[in-house]
Amino acid sequence: MDIKTEVAKIGYEARKAAGILANISSTVKNRALLRMAENLVGEAKNIIRENTRDLQYAREQGLSAAMIDRLTLGEDAIRGMAEGLEQIAALPDPVGEITGMRRRPNGLLVGKRRIPLGVIGIIYESRPNVTADAAALCLKSGNAVILRGGSEAIHSNLAIARILQGVLRETEIPEAAIQIISTTDREAVGEMLKLEEYIDLIIPRGGEGLIRAVVDMSRIPVLKHYKGVCHVFVDESADIEMAAAICLNAKAQRPGVCNAMETLLVHSGIAGKFLPVVAARLREAGVVLKGCDRTRAILPDIEAATEADWYEEYLDLILAIRVVDGIDEAIAHIEKYGSLHTEAIVTSDYRNSQRFLSEVNSSTVLVNASTRFSDGFELGLGAEMGISTTKLHAFGPMGLEELTTTKFIIYGDGQIRT
Amino acid sequence: MDIKTEVAKIGYEARKAAGILANISSTVKNRALLRMAENLVGEAKNIIRENTRDLQYAREQGLSAAMIDRLTLGEDAIRGMAEGLEQIAALPDPVGEITGMRRRPNGLLVGKRRIPLGVIGIIYESRPNVTADAAALCLKSGNAVILRGGSEAIHSNLAIARILQGVLRETEIPEAAIQIISTTDREAVGEMLKLEEYIDLIIPRGGEGLIRAVVDMSRIPVLKHYKGVCHVFVDESADIEMAAAICLNAKAQRPGVCNAMETLLVHSGIAGKFLPVVAARLREAGVVLKGCDRTRAILPDIEAATEADWYEEYLDLILAIRVVDGIDEAIAHIEKYGSLHTEAIVTSDYRNSQRFLSEVNSSTVLVNASTRFSDGFELGLGAEMGISTTKLHAFGPMGLEELTTTKFIIYGDGQIRT
Repeated sequence: MDIKTEVAKIGYEARKAAGILANISSTVKNRALLRMAENLVGEAKNIIRENTRDLQYAREQGLSAAMIDRLTLGEDAIRGMAEGLEQIAALPDPVGEITGMRRRPNGLLVGKRRIPLGVIGIIYESRPNVTADAAALCLKSGNAVILRGGSEAIHSNLAIARILQGVLRETEIPEAAIQIISTTDREAVGEMLKLEEYIDLIIPRGGEGLIRAVVDMSRIPVLKHYKGVCHVFVDESADIEMAAAICLNAKAQRPGVCNAMETLLVHSGIAGKFLPVVAARLREAGVVLKGCDRTRAILPDIEAATEADWYEEYLDLILAIRVVDGIDEAIAHIEKYGSLHTEAIVTSDYRNSQRFLSEVNSSTVLVNASTRFSDGFELGLGAEMGISTTKLHAFGPMGLEELTTTKFIIYGDGQIRT
Repeated sequence: MDIKTEVAKIGYEARKAAGILANISSTVKNRALLRMAENLVGEAKNIIRENTRDLQYAREQGLSAAMIDRLTLGEDAIRGMAEGLEQIAALPDPVGEITGMRRRPNGLLVGKRRIPLGVIGIIYESRPNVTADAAALCLKSGNAVILRGGSEAIHSNLAIARILQGVLRETEIPEAAIQIISTTDREAVGEMLKLEEYIDLIIPRGGEGLIRAVVDMSRIPVLKHYKGVCHVFVDESADIEMAAAICLNAKAQRPGVCNAMETLLVHSGIAGKFLPVVAARLREAGVVLKGCDRTRAILPDIEAATEADWYEEYLDLILAIRVVDGIDEAIAHIEKYGSLHTEAIVTSDYRNSQRFLSEVNSSTVLVNASTRFSDGFELGLGAEMGISTTKLHAFGPMGLEELTTTKFIIYGDGQIRT
């Protein structure tokens, strides 16, 4: 079979499986997830052996230490994957929930019933744990999934997928509910992104380059964020101690993730007092600072920030700082340079807290808390499939519910329209 | 200015207006809507004069009587538009609603706040009342709108849009909240559909040809349905009188709309009794019947339905009838030939009613009621912007809420992530 036919067959099988999976009970899905967790741990040696093949190739190709670190699967990482599956099994099943059921004047009972989207395609890079994680979230939400991991992790991904599929064969869930594209040929991605007839949604997980390539090629709706240029605005009335703690946490607790702060905006009325305090803390944590002219008037030994810095997602221990004259300038800066991801204000002023929540258009907006809370688990979704900065369908961290939709269901007793 | 620059400028202005409009109070929006209703009626003569120009051109071009009918605006139609605006003013404002606000274990208050999508592009054909209707729904839901009507209605559309914009100039709402593309050059649509930076959502309203062309060209998410091949399944246990009334209503009450029945599926166990009854009623209403071989064994004087008939959206007094051996065959037929729009079952059987609601994947599924209820007003949404058969974001009739999204808002008191 050529790649086009192979990928089309996977799509067709997924669509068929989705029709059955949509009506499989939570009990059956949860039992399968728990069994998958068990088998991942039970077959850890196999996974590690396949992972070693990927690692060997990665070293030959001279991949960076960070890349190799993300690729590596040890016993602990495998136990972590299994625990993730157990957590997903424990979550409430979103499918079948009926909301807003109301009686119309003519006696019709009208409500909405939550249903799976159908078939979800996941395109991801490097970290092989996404294979188990994404497959489990799709299964729990009643969606068939087509996985397409990076070539650097192909042996690990295939080993994990084989274990998951092995469990499906012992249940009434169709095996095609979880499929993985086994060729590493890039043509397969292009073919997958044309299958609008079979695939309802594409979720890319990886760097901005991967995501842009997927969006450019896809005929299927894509939920994604390109990057997280997250801001903290320290208002004039901020508690300096609270603001410094939030900034340190937002920047340095885990600098390589999308909800880390990249730009700090400081009200000119507090900059003189606040900047020396926060700069000392950030430097102690190893953060390199860059700033606008007004920042450098207070912190003279830091590098100048250029226009490009305001757009930058460093994903590293680097921070751009700008002094602004108030909340209007802060909001205007975020609107111009932001990525609709996550922004926080630190303030004691009631009106400014409400204005920031209203006027900042990002998918997550916080008052007096670290940007690092912009995360499906931290916000109480119980899981996270990724973060969307597209306003359609889901905006912000996505959990199980965001992998579903609703249809109208109507109970009548013979009503006709007049 | 060339068309590309002109359309880009419209997009840019819309984006700017959307930022302001998102935080305009309901009172101001409602007052503007009521004033627009008033001015439409007050300036009816102007609208009718401009409409006459369109009608004259339409006649010169030899447009069909049905097309000319849809294009015609008299005093009554203008009063109808004005009443539509008054109804939209009376609806609750979806913007600003906060849902699911909960306290997390660390004390953070996390909830979702409903916000406008931003900028919505409406591409539509013939009926000039869409200009007022769509603009009003977008305004009420806090979205800036870019209207692009058909060339056949250009003078009518521009006259209506000028009246709406005139009202905006007297308010604090930016005038660019409602814009209309004044050139009839088709290039403008292509340019509009490239403005992913400025436009958040495209809603095409018109025939399947228009919608397919929009989807093919658009880089922006599109909410649409191509067609409504709606089914009624009359189960073995159906009340024959109820089933006949529902079928007559679903087919003949208004055959030219997307929620009219196009195919009737009848259980073989009731076909012998039911088909003669329903056929008599339908014929009396002028409906031409076509059927499968088993149907024709009971109604020998009707034409044979071909494979193509099962896919057909007649939008006319024509009905295809198929006899099936039970609910499984009915659901399989709908899955193969349906359009995910609207399907109804007529039954007295509890289990079959629940199976139909669960297993039929269409956006609206009814038990013992006419498919004609698949409509935003009838389902209690208070308005209708169109119907979506795409599962992402909205599935089924769309009201004001479907023109919005939610962002996460978080109240903290200094929380950092550990």
